[in-house]
Formats: sequence, C-alpha cells, structure tokens
Amino acid sequence: MTHAVKGRVMKQIKAGLIGFGTIGAGVVKVFQHNGPVIADRLGAQLELVKIADLDITTERGVSVAPGQLTTDVEEILANPEIDIVIELIGGYEPARTFVLKAIANGKHVVTANKALLAVHGEEIFAAASKQGVDVYFEAAVAGGIPIISSIKENLCANQFSSVLGILNGTCNYILTRMTQAGDDFADVLKAAQDLGYAEADPTFDVEGIDAAHKLAILLSICFGTRVNFADISTEGIGNISSLDIQFAEQFGYKIKLLAIGKRDGDSIEARVHPTMIPLYHPLADVEGVFNAVRLVGDFVGPSMQIGYGAGMEATASAVMGDVMAIARNMQLGGKGVRTPAMAYCADKVSQLAIKPMAEIVTQYYLRFAANDQPGVLAQISTILGNHHISIASMIQPERQVGGAVPIVVLTHEAMEDHIVKALAEIDKLAVIKEQSRFIRIESELE
Amino acid sequence: MTHAVKGRVMKQIKAGLIGFGTIGAGVVKVFQHNGPVIADRLGAQLELVKIADLDITTERGVSVAPGQLTTDVEEILANPEIDIVIELIGGYEPARTFVLKAIANGKHVVTANKALLAVHGEEIFAAASKQGVDVYFEAAVAGGIPIISSIKENLCANQFSSVLGILNGTCNYILTRMTQAGDDFADVLKAAQDLGYAEADPTFDVEGIDAAHKLAILLSICFGTRVNFADISTEGIGNISSLDIQFAEQFGYKIKLLAIGKRDGDSIEARVHPTMIPLYHPLADVEGVFNAVRLVGDFVGPSMQIGYGAGMEATASAVMGDVMAIARNMQLGGKGVRTPAMAYCADKVSQLAIKPMAEIVTQYYLRFAANDQPGVLAQISTILGNHHISIASMIQPERQVGGAVPIVVLTHEAMEDHIVKALAEIDKLAVIKEQSRFIRIESELE
Repeated sequence: MTHAVKGRVMKQIKAGLIGFGTIGAGVVKVFQHNGPVIADRLGAQLELVKIADLDITTERGVSVAPGQLTTDVEEILANPEIDIVIELIGGYEPARTFVLKAIANGKHVVTANKALLAVHGEEIFAAASKQGVDVYFEAAVAGGIPIISSIKENLCANQFSSVLGILNGTCNYILTRMTQAGDDFADVLKAAQDLGYAEADPTFDVEGIDAAHKLAILLSICFGTRVNFADISTEGIGNISSLDIQFAEQFGYKIKLLAIGKRDGDSIEARVHPTMIPLYHPLADVEGVFNAVRLVGDFVGPSMQIGYGAGMEATASAVMGDVMAIARNMQLGGKGVRTPAMAYCADKVSQLAIKPMAEIVTQYYLRFAANDQPGVLAQISTILGNHHISIASMIQPERQVGGAVPIVVLTHEAMEDHIVKALAEIDKLAVIKEQSRFIRIESELE
Repeated sequence: MTHAVKGRVMKQIKAGLIGFGTIGAGVVKVFQHNGPVIADRLGAQLELVKIADLDITTERGVSVAPGQLTTDVEEILANPEIDIVIELIGGYEPARTFVLKAIANGKHVVTANKALLAVHGEEIFAAASKQGVDVYFEAAVAGGIPIISSIKENLCANQFSSVLGILNGTCNYILTRMTQAGDDFADVLKAAQDLGYAEADPTFDVEGIDAAHKLAILLSICFGTRVNFADISTEGIGNISSLDIQFAEQFGYKIKLLAIGKRDGDSIEARVHPTMIPLYHPLADVEGVFNAVRLVGDFVGPSMQIGYGAGMEATASAVMGDVMAIARNMQLGGKGVRTPAMAYCADKVSQLAIKPMAEIVTQYYLRFAANDQPGVLAQISTILGNHHISIASMIQPERQVGGAVPIVVLTHEAMEDHIVKALAEIDKLAVIKEQSRFIRIESELE
C-alpha cells in the first residue's frame, strides 16, 4: 500500500497489536511520539491499524483513534492489510494460538514473550520458517539491550565461549538496596513490592526462573543448541544475607544474581545463581533495575552491554526496533527469512549437553559459623585440603553472630563436587554451629 | 553461484579484500577459523576469492591459497564473480577511488576507514544509494562494539538526546596507566609506544583527532545531521597531570578522554576532551584499550556498550559482521539498500549547528596554583561569584608544588564562557603562580 507524503509516494507498512497492557501502551506511545523520525529513517510509513485486547476500557495513558481498539483478535489475525503482528499478551495460551495463526496467515510476528518461546519456540520458529515470515523477539531478553540482535547479526562471525549477565531487574534492585542500605532480603523485598519493582508473588523473579528463561534463549542463539529449560540450575537470592554482602565487599567483591552460560567442548554450563564479581569490573556497577550482558567471542573478545531490563518504555523500544527490522526486510522485497530466528539454520541446531553442577570449576566464597575456640581453622582447612580445595585467603573477624563466630574462606579454583562434599563433612564437626554457606565467584571476570 | 554442500545446494557469496595489513590478516583468519560456523548461521558459503595489496610478500601470520593474492586491484574491482569488496587500506586515496569504482561496478562495500568516511562519506553514500548497493562501516568506530548497527537498527525507534564515550584506546590506555601507576603523561606515552599501543607519531590519538572522527560518524547517524569535522572542539590528554588525576580521585572521579555529542533543540554539542566521570559509573571501570559508548534514547533510556576499540581481531569481527549482513540482504533477494547508510533517508538529513564551546553548560574542576597566604581563597571565590559560578566543594591540601599551593574547586553547573573569563581574571591576580586549569565534569553521569 502506498501513501503520498510530501509530494512523493511512501510505502505504508501496517501493524496490529495484540495485548494493550503496559508494554502495549508503550508501543502505542512510540508510534505516536516518534512516527515522523521513524519514517525519516525507514523511508516508509509505519501504521498501527488495530489494537486488540479483552479489556478496551481501562485507561492506558495513551489516546487511540476511534475504531483502533477491538476485542476481536480476528480483526488483526484475519486482516489482509496487516503485515506485522505484535504479540504482547504474555503467557502460553492464547498467545501460542494467535502467533501460529498470524504466521499461517503470512504475517510477520514480533513478541516479547519469553515464556512462550521457552516452551513453544521450536514449533513457532518451524512454522515461521515454512511460511517464510519473520519472528523477532528482541524484547524477550533485557529490553534496553539489543543483545539478541548483537548475537544473531553483528557478532555473528564469532564463536562464543561465554555469555553471562544480570538478567533480572527485580533481583538486581533488591541486591543493590541490600548492598547500599545494609538491609536484609525480606525488608527490601517488601519495599520493592510497595514501589512496584517486585510482583506480589515474587517467586518467578527472586528464585531466578525469569533469568533462566532468558539464559535459555541466549544459550540457544550463542551456541546453536536446543536447551531443555529444566536442565538449567537455578538458585535465587533469598538466602543472601547482609553479612555475606559485607564480607564480599571486604574481599573486593559485589554479589549479583548472574545467569551464566559457557561452552566447554561439546557441553555447556547453564546456571543462574548469586555470584561474587570483582568491585572494579564494570558489571559490579550495574545497579538497580539495570541489566547487563557480557559475551566473549573468539575474535571480538569480551563485549558487554548495559541497559534497562524491563519497563514500559525500554521494552517498547525493543519491540519497535524489531518492527522496523521487519519493515526493512519487507522494503527490500525478496522472499523468505533474512536471519534464522535462532541464529543458526534450523538443520544446524544441535543439542549440547548441560554440564552437571557437580563438575563446575570456579572460585568459592565459603562462610562457616563456628565456636570461637582454638583449632577450628585447622579442622576446616584440613578437610578442605583433603578435598583438593586450596585456600586463597581467609578472615575470622571478631564478631558474634548468634553465639558463633563467622569464618570466611576464599578458595582458588575448585570443583563444585569437592566443595559440596567438603562442606557436608565440615558441617558434621562439633564446633560448627550452622549450615555452612558458599557463593560462587566468577573467575572469568578476575 | 551455487555450490553443493552435504547433499544440498548452498548459495555462495564471494568477497574480495583490498589491503592485506594487520586488519586484513585478521579478516583472513576469521574466514579460515570460523568459515563453517558462519555457513551454519548464514545458510550460505562465504568465500574470500582475492586479496589485493601492493606488498604480497611480507609474512602476515596467515597462509593463503596460491593465486589468492594479487597486486592488481582490478582483479577484485573488475571481477564479475565478486559481490562484496572489503576496503582495508585506510587513508583517502586510493581508497576513495577503489570504493567508488567497486560501487560503480555494482559491488557492496565494507570499510573500516573512518578518515575516508569523514571526508568523502557523502560522495560515497550517494553513489552507493544510486547504485542500490550497501556500504557498511561498523569497524570504523570501536570495532568490538556494534554501536553503528545498534543506532541504525536496534535502537532506531528512539530519538537520541546524547551519545558519548571512550573512543580511543591509546588515550584510555595512557590515562589508565597514569591513574594506576601515578606516572606522568610523557613516561606512559613512551612505554605505550614501546609496547605498540601508541604510534611513533601519537598526535592523531593523543590530541583527540581520532576520537573526533568517530564522534562525527556517531553524531551523523544519531541525529541525522551532516557534521563539519572542523567544528568539533578537540582537546587531547597531553595536559593532564598526575596531580589532576589524584585530586579527581579525592573528589570521587576518574579522568577519561570522552567524545561527547548531545542534542539541544536545533543544535548539537560536539566535543572531545578530558572529562571527569564518577568512580561508581560503569564507564569509569572501562580501562586500558577498551572502548565504551553510551547512548540515551527517549524510550530505551541510557544504553551502554563496552568492548575492544581496535586491534586485529575485534576489528576483523566487525568487518565480518558487516559482510554477513550484506550476505543476508543478498540472500533475501530484492533490490536496493535495506537501511540507509547514515541511518536517515538521504533527503531527511539536516545540518544541525554545532554549539560553540562558550555556551556549554556543565560542572567544572578548577585547579589554581597560588601563594600560600591568607585571603587567596576569598579573592578566587569572589571572582567566581562575579561570573555566576557557584562552588560545590573545595580543597586546599597542605602540599607544595613548585613553591605554590594547589587549590582545587568543583563547581555546580556553569557556562563555559563564564569559566574561561573567570579564570582569565583569576590568572591576573598577583597570588596566582601558574595558569589555572579546568577539566569538565560530565554532569549527565551523576
């Protein structure tokens, strides 16, 4: 369809939006605020012709034209005028049905739905590939960071050895507040909920599940592998105490919830857990609701990006970047998919095994609560030595925590299996008063 | 052209490389090391059919097939088999002639040549647009950071308010060494030259010219404007003393050479100079030869990328990312240019005025060298006040530097014109022993 703009004919590309929630309203705002600059960059007119939602009466903070809103999703899915369908309803169903129908009708799809991709990605991408339409999903991982595109496009001449990052803004906000204010997890979580930075049921965020969903996507596109989500080891931040945060700082570290993916021959590491990173590393300064992703490629070396992880506006920016990418593909003409949705041609995707956590090798922070009596350290270090764990440094501050004295040990690189077994043995000592704790240190950032 | 791979026909895309220096050898290495994974991602076979250089006898650390090397550039420019020409000879001529000839012959071009683009960009992009071929130049700015593509593609739904960064690895290496070792500029420069991190003639780097070239490109694509390179204010790092670095740290800042671009209505700020940034900002942890770019968009908010700025491998990664992007465009079929080379359609590019430095408003670090006698501070602060400059903090340490005592002042936001005039007046005071110094503080990062 064409449309006369300032004396010349400008192509019009039409989109339909399914899901008029927070992010959907953000997308409408981008269309309204930046329509002219988008046209100047694209050489085409992008138009949002329809918005479908079950609820079209709630005030969204944006004004839409009469007739633009509908409760009937078929006005988008079956609309021959619409080229691109933006799916922002979230969840598995009916999102899956709508996306598959849009694809079947020859429409390109933009989605921010990581849960959908994690579970039904293969089905959706296969359908899209068969139809020769695009499925873009930059907004599914760290909305303010164009990491999907960087991996699939700009850095795609590299073989990646690792991808890691801060992928959940709620956890990072909570850890930042705990670090800056010295407050405990429960208090900060409560405050975060009051501020709207954490959900009423925060499980999905604070237990690392959301970060693991995003890691699954990053692993797939970095390493060309199918990822079985259940194989990703996931630990949340609920057990981090302000005591650990203070000790970390004494040793020159900050604690962040990291999602970590590494390639090791024909297997990969895939894990989400609280991690100590050096204070001097730029990742340590990624605070509050910011996200960050760091990749290492064999030619580019380390490459890192920092931006908002979520929120209406940053996510809408990512969605619209995808819409514009599809519009560019359409303008070029031609047929088919420009870049494979999961970075690798479908027949080149493998299934790399995920390494068991017991085989992980990294440095560890260990915290023991022991009776304050001579010989404790000798007993602990003997057991560590018996398990091939070498001590890098140790502090035994003069302070009482529940009647016991904390002893903190930083190890050189050790195997997790050895750590777990050594700690089980140490916990049986009569002088040990609480279960010993460990936090992994990300050695690669040293 | 097609080529049978594992039982199916795979498209072949052919490239020719002009310039077999360090970066050229890096590109050959990517082809050789990552050819298979590139094909798995692209669904096409990339082949480097010819390499042209005047010198084809020097050992480059990579082995090339017999007949692949030539001293005759026409074997690339006039070769009907070649789809993509990679220009890595640098400088204005004969690079310009070769690039224009490649375009005239219908070939896409990838270049890392920022000097060429700064001076002949408009001619080259116009020719490419007319021919419907692509000119990609990701490697021209911060090779390890896909910033050109992020601006032109992923974040292109945003209106940008600022783009700033550490764009010269040599300067950042020198400032990092000065900060960490406390050495003076001249000593560190000498050491950097011995290590190959600085050229024998370091003018281009240490005076900020290289960073200004890169800033010109970033300004153009962020703001859709032609930039007259001569209008960019450029100050190098030669006047930074270890004394300033130490004072900066006392106030919680690090000194970096920043290239800064900001939009202010219909004008832009465009300046390269040593800048104080807060120690807690991730940019302050960008050390050594790393580069970083930070953008602010109206929807994405602040978005930052960190990676190697130069070097054989990171630059080759960027070049090959561009080659693959063009290969994807070719595979899609169709005709014309997918994304305007300078981010905006040619008829939408404007010419925004560059704001004179006198009108810049930011915070300032001021260092005076004064006689150690009562009343000095009163005289200084009176003059500052008369020029509408408000003091945020001040230190007057007990130390002798050449018989004079340093007095250091941090201001609130002030206009540069007022600072310059106040300092000129202060320098006339009998108690002032040396020319007073100022360093701008990047208020936006506070």
